[in-house]
Amino acid sequence: MINSTHDSTLKSWVDSANDPDTDFPIQNLPYVYFDRSGADGDGGIGVLIGDQALDLTRCREDGLFASEELAEVAWTLQKGAAVSNLFDIDPEALSAFRARLVALLKDDSDEATRSIVAKNLVDSKSVRFDIPCEIGDYTDFYCSIYHATNVGKLFRPDNPLLPNYSWVPIGYHGRASSIVPSGTDVIRPKGQGRPDPEAPPIFGPSRRLDYEMEVGFYVGKGNDLGDTIDIADAEKHIFGLCLVNDWSARDIQGWEYQPLGPFLGKSFATTISPAVVTMEALAPFRVPAFDRGDDYPAPLPYLSDETNAGSGGIDVKLDVLISTKKMRDEGIEPHLISRSNLKDLFWTVGQMLTHHASNGCNLQTGDLIATGTVSGKEDSERGCLLEMTLGGKEPIELPSGETRKFLEDYDEIILRGFCEREGFRRIGFGECRGVVLPAS
Amino acid sequence: MINSTHDSTLKSWVDSANDPDTDFPIQNLPYVYFDRSGADGDGGIGVLIGDQALDLTRCREDGLFASEELAEVAWTLQKGAAVSNLFDIDPEALSAFRARLVALLKDDSDEATRSIVAKNLVDSKSVRFDIPCEIGDYTDFYCSIYHATNVGKLFRPDNPLLPNYSWVPIGYHGRASSIVPSGTDVIRPKGQGRPDPEAPPIFGPSRRLDYEMEVGFYVGKGNDLGDTIDIADAEKHIFGLCLVNDWSARDIQGWEYQPLGPFLGKSFATTISPAVVTMEALAPFRVPAFDRGDDYPAPLPYLSDETNAGSGGIDVKLDVLISTKKMRDEGIEPHLISRSNLKDLFWTVGQMLTHHASNGCNLQTGDLIATGTVSGKEDSERGCLLEMTLGGKEPIELPSGETRKFLEDYDEIILRGFCEREGFRRIGFGECRGVVLPAS
Repeated sequence: MINSTHDSTLKSWVDSANDPDTDFPIQNLPYVYFDRSGADGDGGIGVLIGDQALDLTRCREDGLFASEELAEVAWTLQKGAAVSNLFDIDPEALSAFRARLVALLKDDSDEATRSIVAKNLVDSKSVRFDIPCEIGDYTDFYCSIYHATNVGKLFRPDNPLLPNYSWVPIGYHGRASSIVPSGTDVIRPKGQGRPDPEAPPIFGPSRRLDYEMEVGFYVGKGNDLGDTIDIADAEKHIFGLCLVNDWSARDIQGWEYQPLGPFLGKSFATTISPAVVTMEALAPFRVPAFDRGDDYPAPLPYLSDETNAGSGGIDVKLDVLISTKKMRDEGIEPHLISRSNLKDLFWTVGQMLTHHASNGCNLQTGDLIATGTVSGKEDSERGCLLEMTLGGKEPIELPSGETRKFLEDYDEIILRGFCEREGFRRIGFGECRGVVLPAS
Repeated sequence: MINSTHDSTLKSWVDSANDPDTDFPIQNLPYVYFDRSGADGDGGIGVLIGDQALDLTRCREDGLFASEELAEVAWTLQKGAAVSNLFDIDPEALSAFRARLVALLKDDSDEATRSIVAKNLVDSKSVRFDIPCEIGDYTDFYCSIYHATNVGKLFRPDNPLLPNYSWVPIGYHGRASSIVPSGTDVIRPKGQGRPDPEAPPIFGPSRRLDYEMEVGFYVGKGNDLGDTIDIADAEKHIFGLCLVNDWSARDIQGWEYQPLGPFLGKSFATTISPAVVTMEALAPFRVPAFDRGDDYPAPLPYLSDETNAGSGGIDVKLDVLISTKKMRDEGIEPHLISRSNLKDLFWTVGQMLTHHASNGCNLQTGDLIATGTVSGKEDSERGCLLEMTLGGKEPIELPSGETRKFLEDYDEIILRGFCEREGFRRIGFGECRGVVLPAS
């Protein structure tokens, strides 16, 4: 629901939040887990505002959340608490908390309060952002029909999309332990591949390392084992979104994936952006679900309701940039290689969640569910190199004069996401970055 | 290494441990997490001895592990501690602890000590056994070549085994949240299936519910992200084994699994036996790895070493029993429907572990890794109904006059495992049970 916290005329006394290019104006306020000392120990839940992080634990200790209405949220803001402590709080209570944060940070707040808030701001550059919570289970979907079609074409030119695709939100269990925060280096994995099908497979560093531009969402309230989640209630179980780079070793994946799906081609690293952009902050950017027209069947009833159809989509522009070592050495800015949009997914986040729990699987607070590679219809909207280079056949060209079929050592991939709509303030997701290091 | 704790002549003053049929003689001593009150709160790590569980926390409080050699283990035995607290302790220290437990429990222990130990025994029937630890990530392999061939034949009669099978230990990420302890009812999942390929898929209770007889092993010491585990060191990272029933909805699985593998066909429940049988207890039952002869290629070097080849296998007989409601009503005992053996796996537990970490994936203490369905060469050794009934075509007959293609409501599946070898005491795994309840 759009409310007064989305008002585009709101300004903050934190100057950097009023920069038109910031991802974190007062209308956004994503949650992060930050660590002040750079090591474990002095950190906890914060919100991002401009180029600052507001330490919510200290704000609480200073009595800024002392009202009864905020008691439940305030209680969770213990020192060192994970952001997931907030995830299963009722949306109404979270909404009241967001309104309170806006009141504290907007430019007409009273001087006395402002001085208390100000001393609890820390420069985002001076702290380390970790993943926001311990992720129990990580699930990865495959919800871009354009991605599925582009990848399918490489293997089955005449029949790219499998018959189940338009009926089932296809997904698989991912590896939770190797989820790392933005900025963590990614070591090129070793593994088995079989470049020559006539010769035995070989074991060594992956030669077809790729990124995947994805979006993840965190489970807020969970469901008990054996219970399901009605599609009409699905979004009550979703707390917020982040960016996900689901790094992929295509040679390992291609050789191992039959018949049980991706495994070591994925589990060496998954990078996430630290900021959790709440569903409430995203309210102005909701759009209808994918238009199936006459081309695809309507979703089965358990995946279908009017609200989902009418506003199940989310308009988030998703940019992928690359920066090679040569580019950095020559002072060339990171280069945009694709821009896709979350709204083009065939399945909505609500449908993913409801489908996931439809067999009684217990989703738990803090689980991360990713969309799969987000690609669009156009060539410029392909969310991984596998699609972009047609499986390594057509290299992309970079401003440094280099080309890439797949990632090379010291390449950095930078994912960005942001929402824009006439009449509303632009909000963003921050970045999800990772540099490829040579195999060890 | 076989040592004095494996001596078949050892007897315990706990009489039930000397019963020739017990799974838990003094030579076994598997670890469990038990809860005395039946609810959370008064429990912790125990070991099973005969029909009793020994409360290790209380033994520690009573000073029974006060020596310096046992200090590290003793430290982990806090009230309510998970069994995984023991998992990353050095094998030497664990071995010393095992020797101490044997000394406390054997029939020539001194009277004073015995009376202290005795008051810390509780009747296994009076306590609730939970899963032994929080399982971070759960991985399921596919390591029985007989299972892979039997299942492959159903889909590709002329070419049952895919080309990667003999090179890659095939596995996939499973769902950790829905792992439940033996005795938990399993609700029949709902999901999508497409029984008639000419008609749209349908959503409803699974009609092809199956069990899978598997064995799981717990990761002891983990590895850091980016590090790998040498095959020669693999078993140093494995703490012990349990039984796993990886319940499967074959209709959901069959419709959803392409191209990313099993998902909701598996994630509704995985039942594990509570006892963790240590690698040390299993030492007498080690056998050579699968004999590949001239039929299959030698493992690639990263999966190959002499110790693994010579004693990487484990001889564990695995029984599946079924008990239908009618059988229980008529007083008919559970009926043995298959007996397979862990030694017949194509890949060893060490190979699974080394392969899993070969891409730098960080395995963590308490992760559970399962073997996949353990089937053997013979018809009587098929570890799931899908294989046994040839995909539902040939029902099995039960002593009650009933038949089964797949599981029906109120069927109970009971898994058992045990090791026997001339000159050694039989040890067992206890049971892994679950009753199917109707879809809700």
